[in-house]
Amino acid sequence: MKIARLEAFSDGVLAIAITLLVLDLHLTDGSDKSIGRQLADQWPSYLAYLVSFVVIGIMWVNHHALFQHVAHVDRALLFLNLGLLLVIAVLPFPTSVAAEGLRRGGNDARVALFTYSLAQVLIALAFSAIWVYIVRKPGIRQQPMSASDQRASIRRFSAGLVAYLLLCGLAFVSPIATLIGHGLVAVYYAFEQLPDAPLAGPERHQAS
Amino acid sequence: MKIARLEAFSDGVLAIAITLLVLDLHLTDGSDKSIGRQLADQWPSYLAYLVSFVVIGIMWVNHHALFQHVAHVDRALLFLNLGLLLVIAVLPFPTSVAAEGLRRGGNDARVALFTYSLAQVLIALAFSAIWVYIVRKPGIRQQPMSASDQRASIRRFSAGLVAYLLLCGLAFVSPIATLIGHGLVAVYYAFEQLPDAPLAGPERHQAS
Amino acid sequence: MKIARLEAFSDGVLAIAITLLVLDLHLTDGSDKSIGRQLADQWPSYLAYLVSFVVIGIMWVNHHALFQHVAHVDRALLFLNLGLLLVIAVLPFPTSVAAEGLRRGGNDARVALFTYSLAQVLIALAFSAIWVYIVRKPGIRQQPMSASDQRASIRRFSAGLVAYLLLCGLAFVSPIATLIGHGLVAVYYAFEQLPDAPLAGPERHQAS
Amino acid sequence: MKIARLEAFSDGVLAIAITLLVLDLHLTDGSDKSIGRQLADQWPSYLAYLVSFVVIGIMWVNHHALFQHVAHVDRALLFLNLGLLLVIAVLPFPTSVAAEGLRRGGNDARVALFTYSLAQVLIALAFSAIWVYIVRKPGIRQQPMSASDQRASIRRFSAGLVAYLLLCGLAFVSPIATLIGHGLVAVYYAFEQLPDAPLAGPERHQAS
Repeated sequence: MKIARLEAFSDGVLAIAITLLVLDLHLTDGSDKSIGRQLADQWPSYLAYLVSFVVIGIMWVNHHALFQHVAHVDRALLFLNLGLLLVIAVLPFPTSVAAEGLRRGGNDARVALFTYSLAQVLIALAFSAIWVYIVRKPGIRQQPMSASDQRASIRRFSAGLVAYLLLCGLAFVSPIATLIGHGLVAVYYAFEQLPDAPLAGPERHQAS
Repeated sequence: MKIARLEAFSDGVLAIAITLLVLDLHLTDGSDKSIGRQLADQWPSYLAYLVSFVVIGIMWVNHHALFQHVAHVDRALLFLNLGLLLVIAVLPFPTSVAAEGLRRGGNDARVALFTYSLAQVLIALAFSAIWVYIVRKPGIRQQPMSASDQRASIRRFSAGLVAYLLLCGLAFVSPIATLIGHGLVAVYYAFEQLPDAPLAGPERHQAS
Repeated sequence: MKIARLEAFSDGVLAIAITLLVLDLHLTDGSDKSIGRQLADQWPSYLAYLVSFVVIGIMWVNHHALFQHVAHVDRALLFLNLGLLLVIAVLPFPTSVAAEGLRRGGNDARVALFTYSLAQVLIALAFSAIWVYIVRKPGIRQQPMSASDQRASIRRFSAGLVAYLLLCGLAFVSPIATLIGHGLVAVYYAFEQLPDAPLAGPERHQAS
Repeated sequence: MKIARLEAFSDGVLAIAITLLVLDLHLTDGSDKSIGRQLADQWPSYLAYLVSFVVIGIMWVNHHALFQHVAHVDRALLFLNLGLLLVIAVLPFPTSVAAEGLRRGGNDARVALFTYSLAQVLIALAFSAIWVYIVRKPGIRQQPMSASDQRASIRRFSAGLVAYLLLCGLAFVSPIATLIGHGLVAVYYAFEQLPDAPLAGPERHQAS
């Protein structure tokens, strides 16, 4: 299995998941409310669309950054990646739940945003599992990684996991702040990058 | 991040968004109207499908024309592009709103077509932001651009923005003319092209 | 615009359209009929899925055969291809209409299958328009085509168009036979191929 | 038709089918149940999502393993592959049926899981048909296959087919065990691989 093929399939799944988010935006069939009112009532869906789009978009960037470190795909990595895709591809569902929760408010909002945060915890764990595998397994990665780079990357993944767990708790205090918080964590990940991958060797060039 | 990868992901999102448009075409479950009547009642959906398909299709062409000018993708460009995809991928929603508005008529139609036009304004702004960034940032673009080409491109983007703002206003006068107007602006963009990109250098060839 | 890019986008749209066909297969929410009964009642949807899947699949093969003849993509060809994608991507809708028509029977079935056949006529016209353009415009095609090959290809496209028009009429006699007929015409197109494309020149190899 | 093109189209269809699985996860519009209750009630949908995601993901891996043996694509192989895609792309439907069956329980659950198992039998047959064609037709495969490899591969496909037929029967005893069983068979296929493909020749490298 070439890296390019795994990346192309992953890109496809991410592109589809990010585009399917729009399907949660729709008018209610047969509603007698005016369109203007219906559009206004759906602000939670717009916010959820915005946050999840940014989240998946940045995951796409980070997925590539991760696989820049990979020189060889074995079966374990293939299935770790499949697990990651499974939890990312499901994201349109908690996104829709979060929007409906915010529309309803009260306890429904809290449960909905907790669900959304839990999905992000699972994604963070799936990303971490891949990273640990890449760092630990000698034949997989492009080049040995310096001890300081290893520490930096562990700090980065731990920070994300802690943030998502905190957001799980925040869901019970302020659901709307929780959703916005997920957007902010995504922006953090957009700037706090993985250590640079080594220059790609000849096999890498061939594969891409 | 290679240009080819950014383009492939963008192509994927655009291909999915353009194909999802068909999901707004459907018979009403459990309706006792004849199929012929239901098909006839849905003419606004056909018109909206046609216009949005052409709009996204031409955006796809122009997206490539834009990135022909790019020699190097940095993080800012990555996120500007993500913002553009966000507003294009949402288009099936205002398309569906526009069709429902035209079916209902009256104020609903005006609000619906204003919403559709607003979405196009956002897309035009996102395209302009990318263009300004490419033209201004020296390391990004393939080759320096002549002053006359710069003026031509600014004229082009400004014309589009003005047209979309006019269509926002027209929505309150004639919703149906507004929708047709969007189709015509798309056709304008099909013919009024960006200045030719310079011949691609060796890196470009390698990337594609 | 490289040929490879146009083909990749077209492949994407066709792959999505063919996969979206499954969305018309679903149980009725809240129905108190047994699942077995609901599954049995949906036989028209299975037949429509089967026929449209084969139809789009073979269109995908023929789309490639068509573009094997193309050495250079100009703007007219780009928009002719966009028109073709527009009518193919809409096919999940008449497929769903055909299935609902067969479930209802009577006049609804006749109108539904006429609609399905009309969509195929439009697709046939869009394919023919591209072919005529490729054959006529000297700079577009790979190599000059022999007079006998030109006649063979015109015969092939004409046969399809006549068949679809006949199926438009058959819809008013036997809707179910009409749907099966579309499957048979697709199989005809699977075997009655375009004349072989000339061996690809060096530019072609580079592009793919 | 290059192998790479057939694989890219197949990858696209599989990526879309695997991502569409999420559309069966949704809250019920207008339900007055709490979101927490609705989320809890949907456990069969989560299980069905998990199993079908793993099933399609591993089919994707095995599809590539299969085509590693192919040196040349002819028309028969093209249509055998189209048949395989047809039965895989339909999988979101029996997945949704299985989830609804488990929610209802009783006879509905049995019929639903029998349907799901039947879909898997069809997929197994489609895979076997391609494999038999590759092994038998001399010009198609990369290299002659040893008699022991042939026996191993026949054993592998037969084991799968027997397992799916057993699961068809198990559906009438324990629907939930049947669904889990499908996940286990997929994991079996993840580890029990096809014999290694021969090293790819120069044409293969060029194609990918």
